[in-house]
Amino acid sequence: MLHTYKIVLSYDGTNYHGWQKQPQKKTVQGVLEDVLFRFQSQRIPVMGAGRTDAGVHALGQAAHFRARLNLDDADLLRALNGQLPQDIRVTSLTRTDKSFHALRSAQSKIYQYRICNQASVSPFVVRYVLHWPLPLDLKNMQEAASLFVREADFSTFSSNRLLHPVRRVFRSEIKKHKGEIIYTVEATGFLKYMVRTMVGTLLEVGKGRLEPQEIEALFKQNKRSLSTPTAPAKGLCLLQVNY
Amino acid sequence: MLHTYKIVLSYDGTNYHGWQKQPQKKTVQGVLEDVLFRFQSQRIPVMGAGRTDAGVHALGQAAHFRARLNLDDADLLRALNGQLPQDIRVTSLTRTDKSFHALRSAQSKIYQYRICNQASVSPFVVRYVLHWPLPLDLKNMQEAASLFVREADFSTFSSNRLLHPVRRVFRSEIKKHKGEIIYTVEATGFLKYMVRTMVGTLLEVGKGRLEPQEIEALFKQNKRSLSTPTAPAKGLCLLQVNY
Repeated sequence: MLHTYKIVLSYDGTNYHGWQKQPQKKTVQGVLEDVLFRFQSQRIPVMGAGRTDAGVHALGQAAHFRARLNLDDADLLRALNGQLPQDIRVTSLTRTDKSFHALRSAQSKIYQYRICNQASVSPFVVRYVLHWPLPLDLKNMQEAASLFVREADFSTFSSNRLLHPVRRVFRSEIKKHKGEIIYTVEATGFLKYMVRTMVGTLLEVGKGRLEPQEIEALFKQNKRSLSTPTAPAKGLCLLQVNY
Repeated sequence: MLHTYKIVLSYDGTNYHGWQKQPQKKTVQGVLEDVLFRFQSQRIPVMGAGRTDAGVHALGQAAHFRARLNLDDADLLRALNGQLPQDIRVTSLTRTDKSFHALRSAQSKIYQYRICNQASVSPFVVRYVLHWPLPLDLKNMQEAASLFVREADFSTFSSNRLLHPVRRVFRSEIKKHKGEIIYTVEATGFLKYMVRTMVGTLLEVGKGRLEPQEIEALFKQNKRSLSTPTAPAKGLCLLQVNY
């Protein structure tokens, strides 16, 4: 019988060309489909909740696939982790309704971006943070971050032009924790490079090159500019997908 | 003027053949000396407090070197980190008395060993823990660990034969923290593979293959056996060197 499986995944994106399958490149989706092929001897497409960029990490990426497998869920989870490389782990696996779709059923996604704001970065976190050793105006960054909470056309903060560029951001906040500035953002969905471009803009604010109030004008200009650079991938992590 | 510098180092040992310089191999000492060579155009030997094995990490390794450099300490620290790879960081640098010797002046060293005792390991810690998914008898492991606190010949727990194999262990304890079993040990010094062999023995106790009371007999047998296997390097970290 054909089952629909929902899986939740953690991965260290350092050694991957992102989520989406690409010829000749190691990607998370590609590696997952290669492993599933060993279980059923036919291609099983895996649909993810979002296409994380090359170098972006995930604590709670979600995905679904449909397969005819005779394993218990717990055994299948163990078997998948036994075949996957150590930098990709399936943290949960459940059979779900056949109408479930990892991308279309998602209610919201939460991303986190970590900025190490100290003189040097520990070797144990350097793969997961952007390093910025100079002072940053935390208060202005927090004020600017709050201005992203809205339903709006986010084209200013994306690299591609879409017919439907409106997204709804529920939560956009910055906290300082032990020398790290941590940005958390939750939205119905994100345009390409959207979180990294919002972070790049927040860094411009932190460096004093942009005032928080200028965010409003950026939304209106409706295109990218020097004020909206894209922050590096390695600081970004897909924390959670809500259904 | 010739100064004696004391440095404290953190490193992710994953990509190194240990601390000690070896021809044709990437080691932490070798990389440090290569970097210092750029500052003074002559070989500056770096003496470490301990020779960590291949794959072992350090949060607080200590070392010293003597050099004629015209940089402020803060500038030298920054310059060193600017030249070192990201998986080695100098976390402190101070000029010290010329009698200081990183190895001989050390009063004690603290090592930590992490065992992930869950079904699967997060991709973000897999480089720093040993994975053991089956049950372990924590209470027996704790009892056995306490029996290592003594001044004794530790040859049973080492791979080489020394003329002076007596070491004094001050502290040897196991705590459980969020699915990890964490072993911390402090001693005046350690024999080759000593911590990893003590951990291997504690794992035998945890698996029920050895009773805590048998530790006593192991000390007396004065040689390695099947009861004293060596645990993998990647779970081990040199936490701190005390002077």
